[in-house]
Amino acid sequence: MEALPRTVELFYDVLSPYSWLGFEILCRYKNIWNINLHLRPSLISGIMKDSGNKPPALLPRKAQYLARDIRLLRQHLQVPIQFPKDFFSVILEKGSLSAMRFLTAVNLEHPEVLEKVSRELWMRVWSRDEDITEPQSILAAAEKAGMSMAQAQGLLGKISTPQVKNQLKETTEAACKYGAFGLPITVVHLDGQTHMLFGSDRMELLAYLLGEKWMGPVPPAINARL
Amino acid sequence: MEALPRTVELFYDVLSPYSWLGFEILCRYKNIWNINLHLRPSLISGIMKDSGNKPPALLPRKAQYLARDIRLLRQHLQVPIQFPKDFFSVILEKGSLSAMRFLTAVNLEHPEVLEKVSRELWMRVWSRDEDITEPQSILAAAEKAGMSMAQAQGLLGKISTPQVKNQLKETTEAACKYGAFGLPITVVHLDGQTHMLFGSDRMELLAYLLGEKWMGPVPPAINARL
Repeated sequence: MEALPRTVELFYDVLSPYSWLGFEILCRYKNIWNINLHLRPSLISGIMKDSGNKPPALLPRKAQYLARDIRLLRQHLQVPIQFPKDFFSVILEKGSLSAMRFLTAVNLEHPEVLEKVSRELWMRVWSRDEDITEPQSILAAAEKAGMSMAQAQGLLGKISTPQVKNQLKETTEAACKYGAFGLPITVVHLDGQTHMLFGSDRMELLAYLLGEKWMGPVPPAINARL
Repeated sequence: MEALPRTVELFYDVLSPYSWLGFEILCRYKNIWNINLHLRPSLISGIMKDSGNKPPALLPRKAQYLARDIRLLRQHLQVPIQFPKDFFSVILEKGSLSAMRFLTAVNLEHPEVLEKVSRELWMRVWSRDEDITEPQSILAAAEKAGMSMAQAQGLLGKISTPQVKNQLKETTEAACKYGAFGLPITVVHLDGQTHMLFGSDRMELLAYLLGEKWMGPVPPAINARL
């Protein structure tokens, strides 16, 4: 008898580059490992505020390192990630509130496209240096992900409803309860125990906890398809 | 014709738990990969000051996470690491100045035992919760690492000489020039290029840069010996 799949939750915000990296690795492994992956759109600014943490890029030497780290990980992880030119304006000023509310609405009504719409938003902000704050930007990402314009507009009309706003708040609070001080966090539920892993660089440890095999950030089945 | 070994430098402080983890992984791989590993004892407090960074444990939620992360990594990486009971006094107040000056003196006069003495200091502070600031603590670590008491006392007598003090300062400044805002950092020299990797969780990326095989934090040759 096959063991039941273990629940793995990924809390993420499309503003966070390491969230994208963690997301792609888990999306690659979700059909290789015996897991149920739950994608949990959250608001990184809310987590920073609640934990008292500051964005790492505010320290100049960390900002320099981040840029170089992302460049190396782009190759190693095979994710087309690239720093936006005006990092501070895009990441620290414009933020991701509408985008994350939209993903929350997607998750409520069309969870089957959440992965694709999330990826298209990352492709905009963290690959092609395009806006994700304007309605037409969000609609363009949704369409690229395969939604009809009517569907996408319908969901966009709902992002200011209490249901959507509260859901995003609740998910963000859940991340905080798990101990988040940034994103991504991966929460794995195992034999009644819960482990929270911070960042995109604990996926080999996740494999170890799950008793699954780690085959690098680009597992062979994926490699063959690239 | 075998290619020349690539130079890999590890900048570390025995006060830093992730330095120990990175150190053990690199010590395991140094005879598997075609590298020359240079151990570079540095002063983490100097790097924090120079970069303007703050110890992560000052943020309560990070401190909680750190404790749990270390507990999981202890198993996964098979390093007997354990939090000192009075973390703040040991790590943030007492510091590591004498210990790191001693390792600097070891590196100058007996580099062949630097790995072992470093490990014994970590075993004291980050495994058995023992002091590393008193002369007799440092001598005990040196003896456990195989030095004679006379050798160890001779070196201890030199830790306040300008030669030793300046060397530790220079190594710490070198880490800062590579962009360090904490420890460990691993610096790899490849085809005239230099890459700085921060933390103990970029070793798979290091393997990728070197074109070497990553076999997890406990490579099979080591596993067989444990």
